[in-house]
Amino acid sequence: MVVLEEISCSADLKKLNKSQLEVLAAELRQEILHTVSQNGGHLASNLGIVELTIALHYYLDLDSGNDEIVWDVGHQCYAHKLLSGRREQFATLRQLDGLSGFPKPYESPTDAYVAGHSSTSISVAVGISQAARQLGQQKKVFAVIGDGAMSGGMVYEALNHGGDLKVPFTVILNDNEMSIAENVGAMSRYLTRLRSNKRYRHLKDRLTKFLLKRKKIGKSFFNGLERLRDAVKYFLVRGVLFEEMGFVYLGPVDGHNIADLLETLRLAGQIEKPVLIHVITQKGRGYAPAEANPTAFHGIGSFDLQTGQAPAKAPSWTDCFSQQLLKLAAEQPQLVAVTAAMPDGTGLAPFQQLYPDRFYDVGIAEQHMLTFAGAMALRGLSPVVAVYSTFLQRAYDQLFQDICLAGAPVVLAIDRAGIVGEDGETHQGLFDLSMLCAMPNMTVLAPRDAEALRQMLAYALQLKQPVALRYPRGAVLELPQYPPQPLVYGKGELLLHPAKAQLGILALGDMVERALRLADWLAERGVAAAVADLRFAKPLDAELICDLAKSCGRLLVWENGIRSGGVGENILALLQAAGVAAEVELAAFPEEFVPHGKPEQLFARYGLTPEKLGQRILKRWQFA
Amino acid sequence: MVVLEEISCSADLKKLNKSQLEVLAAELRQEILHTVSQNGGHLASNLGIVELTIALHYYLDLDSGNDEIVWDVGHQCYAHKLLSGRREQFATLRQLDGLSGFPKPYESPTDAYVAGHSSTSISVAVGISQAARQLGQQKKVFAVIGDGAMSGGMVYEALNHGGDLKVPFTVILNDNEMSIAENVGAMSRYLTRLRSNKRYRHLKDRLTKFLLKRKKIGKSFFNGLERLRDAVKYFLVRGVLFEEMGFVYLGPVDGHNIADLLETLRLAGQIEKPVLIHVITQKGRGYAPAEANPTAFHGIGSFDLQTGQAPAKAPSWTDCFSQQLLKLAAEQPQLVAVTAAMPDGTGLAPFQQLYPDRFYDVGIAEQHMLTFAGAMALRGLSPVVAVYSTFLQRAYDQLFQDICLAGAPVVLAIDRAGIVGEDGETHQGLFDLSMLCAMPNMTVLAPRDAEALRQMLAYALQLKQPVALRYPRGAVLELPQYPPQPLVYGKGELLLHPAKAQLGILALGDMVERALRLADWLAERGVAAAVADLRFAKPLDAELICDLAKSCGRLLVWENGIRSGGVGENILALLQAAGVAAEVELAAFPEEFVPHGKPEQLFARYGLTPEKLGQRILKRWQFA
Repeated sequence: MVVLEEISCSADLKKLNKSQLEVLAAELRQEILHTVSQNGGHLASNLGIVELTIALHYYLDLDSGNDEIVWDVGHQCYAHKLLSGRREQFATLRQLDGLSGFPKPYESPTDAYVAGHSSTSISVAVGISQAARQLGQQKKVFAVIGDGAMSGGMVYEALNHGGDLKVPFTVILNDNEMSIAENVGAMSRYLTRLRSNKRYRHLKDRLTKFLLKRKKIGKSFFNGLERLRDAVKYFLVRGVLFEEMGFVYLGPVDGHNIADLLETLRLAGQIEKPVLIHVITQKGRGYAPAEANPTAFHGIGSFDLQTGQAPAKAPSWTDCFSQQLLKLAAEQPQLVAVTAAMPDGTGLAPFQQLYPDRFYDVGIAEQHMLTFAGAMALRGLSPVVAVYSTFLQRAYDQLFQDICLAGAPVVLAIDRAGIVGEDGETHQGLFDLSMLCAMPNMTVLAPRDAEALRQMLAYALQLKQPVALRYPRGAVLELPQYPPQPLVYGKGELLLHPAKAQLGILALGDMVERALRLADWLAERGVAAAVADLRFAKPLDAELICDLAKSCGRLLVWENGIRSGGVGENILALLQAAGVAAEVELAAFPEEFVPHGKPEQLFARYGLTPEKLGQRILKRWQFA
Repeated sequence: MVVLEEISCSADLKKLNKSQLEVLAAELRQEILHTVSQNGGHLASNLGIVELTIALHYYLDLDSGNDEIVWDVGHQCYAHKLLSGRREQFATLRQLDGLSGFPKPYESPTDAYVAGHSSTSISVAVGISQAARQLGQQKKVFAVIGDGAMSGGMVYEALNHGGDLKVPFTVILNDNEMSIAENVGAMSRYLTRLRSNKRYRHLKDRLTKFLLKRKKIGKSFFNGLERLRDAVKYFLVRGVLFEEMGFVYLGPVDGHNIADLLETLRLAGQIEKPVLIHVITQKGRGYAPAEANPTAFHGIGSFDLQTGQAPAKAPSWTDCFSQQLLKLAAEQPQLVAVTAAMPDGTGLAPFQQLYPDRFYDVGIAEQHMLTFAGAMALRGLSPVVAVYSTFLQRAYDQLFQDICLAGAPVVLAIDRAGIVGEDGETHQGLFDLSMLCAMPNMTVLAPRDAEALRQMLAYALQLKQPVALRYPRGAVLELPQYPPQPLVYGKGELLLHPAKAQLGILALGDMVERALRLADWLAERGVAAAVADLRFAKPLDAELICDLAKSCGRLLVWENGIRSGGVGENILALLQAAGVAAEVELAAFPEEFVPHGKPEQLFARYGLTPEKLGQRILKRWQFA
């Protein structure tokens, strides 16, 4: 790390010569590989953007805050973190109280804005540029966005508005010819066409440079050029879509050639209009296993650097869903599966292989995904939409109108529901229960283990109404001592009912296993607790809840989500409406942004382990 | 109504000749004008689409369900309703238990899908078309979408996916050169260019027709044509943006010429690819006052048909916000205002007039709106985002990440919060409290009257953190007998505190005035009730709430929103956490889709008038 060690801000970088910049790129890759192989993280995208990050840090004045880079999603900010004074903390990446894997302004002012959810960077860049204009500041603002994120509708809203405002800022389209999954949609085919159009590239670039050299470039000049440019661009068949939106299109540029990148950045800097630079990069660049299989190295746990192999993992909730879906699909020809660019993460890849004609990847486009699925559902198909809890937030309104109000029999398979862990604030799946319980016409199920997940997926498909099935990230639980009883609509299941129970524990989904452990812990201390699996978060089992409240006098409601609008609060309202008095402890996360860390560390920090909750209960209630 | 009386399905329409169709158009306009002038509704858009609706009903087989029309938003479905068997109920439009002003499949199977929120129709049409393809059905599917709705990001997600699937369906872009407000954005300028490009229109149309005549048109033919078409379309500089997305572009067509429309529909029907037809219509067509001022006649109450004048209305909450914003803007140069295509409805129009450089209309693009505002806020401006409660649902995730996690000091001025009335299910503003109370870092305020609204808006701007200020539709309340005390963060205000109160009423926003009436009603029956204005929905005033609970033993919490995740449930959780036992009645709407009707009728139906709630309380509690 001869060169990297000397860099703690973008001014340091400007002292390096061309060959030192190349060494720096190699060192950054080494550092990223080393840390991600130990801590896990986003690898392929971070390896692909090293040279572009160097070029941006070289070209811009980030130290003073004069210039800003807005990273979309943030899957590609590791090199940026290493170059902006965070090299020494980099080994703590994604660990509790360590560096975040995503841009976080609280870590460094060079992280211009929070990110984690896709397709926001252009809106942010338009906002920053417009504020600077309004406050009379000179500022270069760059949004860096991957081709995958370009399918999100927000991008179009922002291009539409940004192109109209005519405020100068630059969008760097980081085209790695593959987003998280294979790219989909017309935009993707369009980019492929631009990319392959090498015949025209140099002609157009030469023309632009020629024009720039002849005259000092200002707004008026470019406006005057509009007519000529119109003719040129249509003749050259390139960048038209972006130019129609009001952007000057430059590229494509080789994203691993620092000199070419710098030249293009300087060119963009002279244009007082919105500019889009099309940069071609390779995911996983410089690490053979990731180059060969970028999808597998998108977001990963720790792995062996030599072989690229990850340690064997226990079967996950996702695996269980994936297998059961295949089984049901074989029996039900109407079953179709839908994802927003996450066939691997959500476990739909095997379905895609077996049933390509019944599989839909709509791109990063959660809004369209739900409405599209709703319409298919109301015309005779049985769509299963597999989506991460946190990304479902993108489609709150479509859930409301196009699924629930429409009464569309869509099954939402909500993965990563509850604490997710190392990805932190933007990825914890803590809000879906609050969203879903508020939705009219919605049924919400949560399985306590693998067998229950299999059972509930089959059940959800035959309900023929809007259903959400939520399950967490990680290794799937098995509770063979409690085989699930047949499902009855709106009914929970009493698992433990000791005589003279002093406490009733109502648990949902993966919290049931913890509730059983808590009951053991309490039993060791002489407190008898009943345990019920709610099964349905909505509608609630009023009979079970009221019976337990009456017989025990005290309830604990345990869910893997935030408190406000969750199952616990809904149970409080139910008890009040029924006129049943009971003391109730709510075990849920407060309305906070829960940071990154291992799931068990986070449960402990929020007092949601069996032991910590047991102590809280013993403190509140003096059991006889 | 000579012709209209004979029409109850699309088969009836097919029997008419050209001149009868013209008579029908006139009769439809007469019927729409008559009913809307009495019941209120969406006028200008419905007058503009009469001929297009006739042409679609004439061309399609709607009776059998073979063909389908998906209306975007639904501001333009009156003629459709009149032609599809609902003429006799049309006088009940927007009235309790009468016809809805929006497409509702429960009214007629010819209303293909629910609508009300914008930009969903293309997703629905893609879903319906794809389901038909998968089930081996032949079906013509038309999405009808206004140029205003084209700025919503969902449209782009759907075009991207629909263009990629290559499933045949048709988008009719109903370009009335003005959406609800003036159109904004690059797309709008693009459409203007297409519209004016008459020189090329006939050439292109002739070419397409020439090609169509020469060969039976099928997929393979059009695929084979791609290269030629590429050359042609770039040469003709038209429809490129849509054609890049995978659509065949036809138009522009005069939307008031039934013969031209039919010819174009037939042409589209022969193309086995996604097609976009660009139709030019005039908002308010056929009614001079609406032609002259389509914005004023977008959504209106009853008015005088002769003069176009509406009866004078009492000042609204919106007016109060509008005036106070102007006052604050004069003092605070950093204050900017942002809307998503609703400058009139949200009361920002006077601000726009006075401060055009500090005003942003981003188009129907709520997602971009929030993130754009968040970025401006974190770079030194003070954005006030004015938005209807129900449309804020479109930006749940941006609220989560780009406002709350980012900690951006944006003031959300949430209009139409609570029961809205005649627009029904899709427009009631009942969910924002549930959304906002779940958001970390969020502060939520609700004024009880005009003076409190003025006070709270000034206060929200100086808080320098994410704040939402919610207020309802309709005439603003004035409670001069209770002038608001200065605001203290997180503190409510006790308004009535009789000695030995047997009940504590905690009310939020416009429910405070009802709570005071309820207290009077109860006092007449010998029950003493304290009344507190919560002021802050979040954070809650724990001291006030616990004190009232302890002193009264019984609480009523009254809010204008749904129960799940609302203020009432949050208060139940607060009391349990504080270990305060109290009997609590929650006065809120259940998680249901509340239909259209006058607000007071809806409050009565859900038992939320002072009298009905008083009776409920007397029934539950036997006061000494």
